Amino acid sequence: MDHVARLRRLQPLLSSNKLDFLLVTHLPNVRYLTGFTGSSGVLLVARRSATFFTDGRYIAQAKEEVRNARIVIQSKPPMVAAAEWLAAQRKKSAAGPTILGIESESLSAGSRDRLAHTLRGKVQVRSAPPLVERARMIKDASEIRLIREAIELGASLFPIACEKIRPGVPEVEVAAAMEYEARRRGAEGMSFPTILASGKRSAVVHGRASGAPIPRSGFVVCDFGVILAGYCSDRTRTVHVGKPPGEARQLYGAVLEAQSAAIHAVRAGVTCAEVDEAARAVLRKSKLGDYFTHSTGHGLGLEIHEAPRVAAGQTQKLESGMVVTIEPGAYIPGKWGVRIEDVVVVTPSGCEVLCETDNDLIVI
Amino acid sequence: MDHVARLRRLQPLLSSNKLDFLLVTHLPNVRYLTGFTGSSGVLLVARRSATFFTDGRYIAQAKEEVRNARIVIQSKPPMVAAAEWLAAQRKKSAAGPTILGIESESLSAGSRDRLAHTLRGKVQVRSAPPLVERARMIKDASEIRLIREAIELGASLFPIACEKIRPGVPEVEVAAAMEYEARRRGAEGMSFPTILASGKRSAVVHGRASGAPIPRSGFVVCDFGVILAGYCSDRTRTVHVGKPPGEARQLYGAVLEAQSAAIHAVRAGVTCAEVDEAARAVLRKSKLGDYFTHSTGHGLGLEIHEAPRVAAGQTQKLESGMVVTIEPGAYIPGKWGVRIEDVVVVTPSGCEVLCETDNDLIVI
Repeated sequence: MDHVARLRRLQPLLSSNKLDFLLVTHLPNVRYLTGFTGSSGVLLVARRSATFFTDGRYIAQAKEEVRNARIVIQSKPPMVAAAEWLAAQRKKSAAGPTILGIESESLSAGSRDRLAHTLRGKVQVRSAPPLVERARMIKDASEIRLIREAIELGASLFPIACEKIRPGVPEVEVAAAMEYEARRRGAEGMSFPTILASGKRSAVVHGRASGAPIPRSGFVVCDFGVILAGYCSDRTRTVHVGKPPGEARQLYGAVLEAQSAAIHAVRAGVTCAEVDEAARAVLRKSKLGDYFTHSTGHGLGLEIHEAPRVAAGQTQKLESGMVVTIEPGAYIPGKWGVRIEDVVVVTPSGCEVLCETDNDLIVI
Repeated sequence: MDHVARLRRLQPLLSSNKLDFLLVTHLPNVRYLTGFTGSSGVLLVARRSATFFTDGRYIAQAKEEVRNARIVIQSKPPMVAAAEWLAAQRKKSAAGPTILGIESESLSAGSRDRLAHTLRGKVQVRSAPPLVERARMIKDASEIRLIREAIELGASLFPIACEKIRPGVPEVEVAAAMEYEARRRGAEGMSFPTILASGKRSAVVHGRASGAPIPRSGFVVCDFGVILAGYCSDRTRTVHVGKPPGEARQLYGAVLEAQSAAIHAVRAGVTCAEVDEAARAVLRKSKLGDYFTHSTGHGLGLEIHEAPRVAAGQTQKLESGMVVTIEPGAYIPGKWGVRIEDVVVVTPSGCEVLCETDNDLIVI
């Protein structure tokens, strides 16, 4: 991970956004810029330097992980330490008003009040644009390698699900077996609560694995992801238990066609809305438009949901190196549902599906 | 769960805090007051009524779970819906300025800005004291029952750890086995990433289970918790692999004595600082004071860390019905560490240790 280059690319954005400092408090952003993997640390970025604040629990870890910033260890919360440090610095300078940008979407209102109070009369606190989130949209080669590894690990859990899914087996038993193997194979954890929704529950978009037994016949939606070396995977497969009626095959086929259409629409320069529409058009054609009740996808990386959103109305253009999910679905309330999801890396001429598989309907 | 009573106890606090409305946005607080278990919903509490806002994904669930508030379903984010609803209401009234309290520690600065913008000229937005968090400190009988069940489930995982902990076995394998059984036995998930820190790593306070093999001799700190019906458990046991040297037995004995002293100090009317000091005094006496580097405990319930904090300087008095962890430890960097943790319910004359066990050192 080239944290030095990431920080160097960020710093010129301070002046172009009329900021003297940027206080990076969102932990995935801190990790992205410094490599710090602990749970308590903030990075104060100046135009030509950076200072990292953490507490006594992370002395050794900060020294090992954070190589591109001065390290300040204090027993108080890192944000308080950063604010006091900045207030003290300010006394030494004499130039015009100092502007501090903050990440106002991930900083609490209470924290901003305390920050402004500590800095009153010395530094103006202002909401910064999501500068680090924007940088994080484009993954570099080392990130794509880590995401690929996470997705390969995630994908290796699906055969376990297929083996465990049988009529009468509680959904949670299937999820537990997948999560057990994820841990054994090196995952730090799951990237979100495993969704395992069978029978009528397959129509519930976020149907977390429950104690309900898998019925003798019906769809089972499996939506699962791991965290490996900090990076998230995300994947959905839908299988059918028992012989699927023609109507079930049609539904599955329409969703698969929608997913394929969206994947084919992905390439650098296309808007997120266009990709979403590619999936939606297929489902509308099959009279399933009203049953596709969520957006087509989202970015992922250090967080399971990142920019960009692949949704209607999103004018953000895809760029090479963006990594997004493509996951259309159709859900008939009280009856059944299907979702198929892959992660793709955007390229100049299209995209690469990570850990691509033949997605013909699996019947169990 | 008597959500009606909880809301009724909260409402008089609005007028005593000079608020006309309180916007409850922190999801555990929303769940505490309404029973809503979804991931997107806010509760707007008025002095005599309450309105719950959620989106289309939760129509059926909101109707089933939320019985003590009017339900408004909108396709926009619930906070936006609540703000617009309140702005529209305001037009109909004519009295003096309306004051809206917000939970500024859990609401982002950006959200507060948008809220204030929507309500400008109509409603004043003000940071409210942590009214719901204060109420949540005192658990009612139904909550204590659920916490007890969570802790019993959590405790049932320790024998699995003891069976799995063997020299050469990766720490994560032990954690995976515990987590698998937790899921099979009905846990919604773990309440925090399982800590399994063996050998020298036992000195790392938050040593998440790693791929490192358990050494032939040394302590293994196991700190683990489950979520069951929304409530968290938390428990730490430390075992020794191989024959412990006298020094290890002394360290373990001192931590156990410190935990026992703190448990004996707990009763209604005592301050949190006094309980913390009871543990700390024992460790100081054994020349381990500098190695007890964290606080003695914390409240738990719908969240793994809640008020009160059992720490030095905390003047909060314990009250009957509070539920806190008692978890002193001592950590010699680069060498080893020990922590022992139980959860207690405060009573007028002392406390009840939930799922109490004989904590003599287990040698594996």
